[in-house]
Amino acid sequence: MTITADDITAAAARIAPHVRETPLWRLPSSAFGLPADAPPFEVLLKLEHLQRSGSFKARGMFNRLLSNPIPAAGVIAASGGNAGIATAVAAQALGVRAEVFVPSVISAAKRARLEALGATVVIAGDVYAEAAEACVARQRETGALMTHAYDQPEVVAGAGTLARELETQAGGAPDAVLVSVGGGGLVAGIAAWCAGRSRVIALEPELAPTLFRARAAGRPVDVEVGGIAADSLGARRIGNIAWAITQQHVAHAELLTDAAIRDAQRFLWTELKLAVEPAAALPLAALRSGRVRPAAGERIALIVCGANVDPATLG
Amino acid sequence: MTITADDITAAAARIAPHVRETPLWRLPSSAFGLPADAPPFEVLLKLEHLQRSGSFKARGMFNRLLSNPIPAAGVIAASGGNAGIATAVAAQALGVRAEVFVPSVISAAKRARLEALGATVVIAGDVYAEAAEACVARQRETGALMTHAYDQPEVVAGAGTLARELETQAGGAPDAVLVSVGGGGLVAGIAAWCAGRSRVIALEPELAPTLFRARAAGRPVDVEVGGIAADSLGARRIGNIAWAITQQHVAHAELLTDAAIRDAQRFLWTELKLAVEPAAALPLAALRSGRVRPAAGERIALIVCGANVDPATLG
Repeated sequence: MTITADDITAAAARIAPHVRETPLWRLPSSAFGLPADAPPFEVLLKLEHLQRSGSFKARGMFNRLLSNPIPAAGVIAASGGNAGIATAVAAQALGVRAEVFVPSVISAAKRARLEALGATVVIAGDVYAEAAEACVARQRETGALMTHAYDQPEVVAGAGTLARELETQAGGAPDAVLVSVGGGGLVAGIAAWCAGRSRVIALEPELAPTLFRARAAGRPVDVEVGGIAADSLGARRIGNIAWAITQQHVAHAELLTDAAIRDAQRFLWTELKLAVEPAAALPLAALRSGRVRPAAGERIALIVCGANVDPATLG
Repeated sequence: MTITADDITAAAARIAPHVRETPLWRLPSSAFGLPADAPPFEVLLKLEHLQRSGSFKARGMFNRLLSNPIPAAGVIAASGGNAGIATAVAAQALGVRAEVFVPSVISAAKRARLEALGATVVIAGDVYAEAAEACVARQRETGALMTHAYDQPEVVAGAGTLARELETQAGGAPDAVLVSVGGGGLVAGIAAWCAGRSRVIALEPELAPTLFRARAAGRPVDVEVGGIAADSLGARRIGNIAWAITQQHVAHAELLTDAAIRDAQRFLWTELKLAVEPAAALPLAALRSGRVRPAAGERIALIVCGANVDPATLG
């Protein structure tokens, strides 16, 4: 399974009427409170948390729904949150029914948002994998079109449109792209587009290390998941598509502590006025913690991937 | 008193090392939940709430400090919040002392931020004008360089750099620029730059109508101020510089209800994931309430001017 540049370009044309072109914000590295010995470089903040539905997931979900006939039963999804919201947004926009299976760790804000979008919400299990299992069983009954949170070609190609847009906005491929990983749909789409032109650096919480552990084991393996970003990045195992693509095109996978993620999330609010969820803060956490150290003069893209956060938790 | 394009271009060069180029986000009017009979047009959201200090005020304050010798007593300011924060940010960045006089309506978040920036905070009176009076008296004692929240040429020229940047990013002057007005520094800077190339539409809360009342009276007059945006837009009288410039270059002044402002602020968070203060929501409030009705195909810039908000109030 691979995703080509043509797949991504076709996806971009398909979803263009429905998704937003999100801003690319250029700032000097001095704006980010980095370690004192960090050389100066350029940061390209891709503000994808401003995407329709509040995360990059809208790209993949619109692409999935627009690429397939939709049965009378509508669409069905299992999701820790953002993929479910994006499925509901796409279904509502296209006038079809949506049923969304979620684990119990979903935030109250995300659940309320799903319901406001007209989706039927089903709580099933405590982690993503359990919700996914219940969803598969239900899909067999109804025949609805399933959207997977990360492991479908249309979903990965949709995510890849983010990297294509970024490259156009930046006037060329950046030296590196830093991106967080849950099930791997976003990193796979980005890596498929960049295909060696930019170093793709995959970032995970220590408490949800699906890609890191797979790379150590040489194959996808189940991991325990938890921590501050679990509701977005709490997939139990890296997706098969993501595994294949990241093996080819991902330079590094790094783990970050919850403390580093929380620090970056707070910095994004207090200093940059970006209200983002923990999963969106991993790229900056990698820079602020010194786990990723760009060279002088490089252009480093940070994917700010989601804003589905209770704003009361930002202060 | 006037401000020329050359003044603004010189200010832009002066402040460039210290301020951020903020993103310009293009969206179709369909993204904003406008009245059903609104024709389609293009919206250019100038995300100036992402400016250093959390508002556009940093542009004017850096320009003021960089244009004058700074006495040993440092700088002194009176401000409902954002101008004081911007003065403190500029003073800290340039290594000089800052004393900031504020009215009692200042939010807890803004006061804490001033103190974290190393400024000495003095509470004086219940409205901006009283704080300003105490500040003037103190300045006579210390000889500090005063930054005025809006009525100084360097402050207006600094604000004008926002319009210059916007025009460059947009690839030409938009058809209209919608901007909120307190004391008028921002609208004056924008009008001075646009100078007839774009319609500048000045927006005020019904409860803080400094420009609207001045236009009705034919001269600046004192007004009562209150309402949801009073801590940013609560100047009692339009500035003299703003009065002169807006008489030449501002097409319309419109009043908006607090309910319309609050609606737009909530929409900006829930649908667009922009966390902004009430003062920054007036341009969208003007569109959503139908008070401003662009024609089909126009390019309409909305100035999103500040993010100094307690995020817990956004939900």
